[in-house]
Amino acid sequence: MLLSQTIAAIGELDRQAMAKARARVDSLLKPPGSLGRLEEVAVQLAGITGRLFPEIEAKSVIVMAGDHGVVAEGVSAAPQEITYQILPRFIDGTGGIGVLARHVGAKVVVVDIGVARPVEWPGVVVRKVRPGTGNIARGPAMAREEAVRAIEVGIELAQAEIDEGADLIATGDMGIGNTTPSSAILCAITGIPVEEAVGRGTMVNDAVLARKREVVAEALKVNRPDPADPLDVLAKVGGLEIAGLTGVILGTAARRVPVLLDGFITGAAALIAAGLCPWARDFIIASHLSEEQAHRHILAALGLRPLLDFNLRLGEGTGAALAMPVVEAAAKILKEMATFAEAGVSDMEREKLL
Amino acid sequence: MLLSQTIAAIGELDRQAMAKARARVDSLLKPPGSLGRLEEVAVQLAGITGRLFPEIEAKSVIVMAGDHGVVAEGVSAAPQEITYQILPRFIDGTGGIGVLARHVGAKVVVVDIGVARPVEWPGVVVRKVRPGTGNIARGPAMAREEAVRAIEVGIELAQAEIDEGADLIATGDMGIGNTTPSSAILCAITGIPVEEAVGRGTMVNDAVLARKREVVAEALKVNRPDPADPLDVLAKVGGLEIAGLTGVILGTAARRVPVLLDGFITGAAALIAAGLCPWARDFIIASHLSEEQAHRHILAALGLRPLLDFNLRLGEGTGAALAMPVVEAAAKILKEMATFAEAGVSDMEREKLL
Repeated sequence: MLLSQTIAAIGELDRQAMAKARARVDSLLKPPGSLGRLEEVAVQLAGITGRLFPEIEAKSVIVMAGDHGVVAEGVSAAPQEITYQILPRFIDGTGGIGVLARHVGAKVVVVDIGVARPVEWPGVVVRKVRPGTGNIARGPAMAREEAVRAIEVGIELAQAEIDEGADLIATGDMGIGNTTPSSAILCAITGIPVEEAVGRGTMVNDAVLARKREVVAEALKVNRPDPADPLDVLAKVGGLEIAGLTGVILGTAARRVPVLLDGFITGAAALIAAGLCPWARDFIIASHLSEEQAHRHILAALGLRPLLDFNLRLGEGTGAALAMPVVEAAAKILKEMATFAEAGVSDMEREKLL
Repeated sequence: MLLSQTIAAIGELDRQAMAKARARVDSLLKPPGSLGRLEEVAVQLAGITGRLFPEIEAKSVIVMAGDHGVVAEGVSAAPQEITYQILPRFIDGTGGIGVLARHVGAKVVVVDIGVARPVEWPGVVVRKVRPGTGNIARGPAMAREEAVRAIEVGIELAQAEIDEGADLIATGDMGIGNTTPSSAILCAITGIPVEEAVGRGTMVNDAVLARKREVVAEALKVNRPDPADPLDVLAKVGGLEIAGLTGVILGTAARRVPVLLDGFITGAAALIAAGLCPWARDFIIASHLSEEQAHRHILAALGLRPLLDFNLRLGEGTGAALAMPVVEAAAKILKEMATFAEAGVSDMEREKLL
């Protein structure tokens, strides 16, 4: 119900606001086009918000944490407990996203949406749909209703942040083993070969990489996800944090607020979100190109060009946090730069100048 | 005298500090290498400052403005007066660098080092060495002593900022026509063909592009700059703001403070600086890859990899300002992220985890 309402609420970009923003950007005190990508983001922000002067005053990074039954297949170098153990470090600001979110002035919302162990860390939002997914090499990750519930958790939490004033939402993930379901989603949705969709994830050697490829192929064979039905793909070969992030993207887009992707896992969530509602794609800003080699296939499928290319592969929303000041800068050139007219240069003089 | 003292004061990176920083980065709560370029910048900052925990508390963008006699050859789409007219907009924060420097919390220092007209705008630092260069298609840009004086202005102003507390300096340029001398410097220093070294600059059409190429070839033929003598290259085919920026780079490196390049023109200044003192290169962080096509040749010659790729071609230090939060983030991961040990994970547990 919430899911279908949310999808129905997602509209197109506001073309009129974009045209106005483009005209203003072209009238600013600079050669047309000379602020490159910043200008593109500025126009997109206008289209998302419907405002000529979009403002970004409060920012939240929503980090969804979940575990994966498929780790039983030996697809991860790190043990499952890490998903649980790292969470307090996101809260106390000593883990990667804790440091970078504080640096850019963003709030961090850490969500247990499917951690295997009971989570009682202070500050973690516990909205556990189930304690980890099933092993996708043997059967579905979760039931279809569980996938819907996890998406709805994401919608609710994103919209709660927006209700409290956030005007830029970033996505982040934590979940040992979650590159494997993300690769399976990429294969299922786009049909690209398993070899291209599976990368090393975190510290994976050649043997584990080969095993990951076998497991993704097996997951697709056992579950036969229907590429035309994104919820089927998500439930059968996805993950709980991926589902939650799908909800964050949809819920943010429905409120006409920009949403920053992080890396590979949040990209898999975006594939599901765009499958459920193609217009959702237009509300997304891709923060960075991950070191995970298959990430470029996800961005290509979404038609998104990443802002940064820093060889990151940490997840947690770290790349999305690093891109926040760029998005803010784009908003500020619209609002704070003077036009030629405002600077007292007449159209005639401008003709002469440009 | 100041120039030779400054060059003599530039040392090597502190390898011991870098080794300690690398060890700390590898001990942080994340898979080794997973913060990619941020880790590289963190280690470089340690090598530059000699500190395991480099801090960036105050930042300055030094924008050098100068005019170019070569505009008489029709190499620029915009008239020379723009160099003069835009300066107050940098000061009042409505020009590009004004907006972006305020966004990242950096001070802007605007310097008339060679504007053709007398500059009396409040807030502009007037250190004019001469009112614009000679036409390099007919003769030298300036005398060798003038080039030295302009470099020394840059050294003095950069070190004044550092004396006032700046621990990150960014370079910026303003000067109608200054892509032409920058291309001439690139050709003279690296020997690459004129066709590859000359790009469109700002709003240049095919006819003007062809003219720029002729003019650069002519400037090299008329002046015969000596590639083994960077001061000769600078004086014969350079520019006053380029010389000032060379000084900013050298003066900052001599104080063991990181210096951010902006785009093509500041890159030409870096070629001269690295020619005068190869170690200076190690104190430079390349902020972005410019839309000006020849910029990649400058960065390749310097062995620098740009942080951002936003198709910028505005100059003014705008790309350097946008990269400042990235450099700060790199410093903060060293200082603010916990290590496995600090988080209470023993080496033995860590072995198991990683």
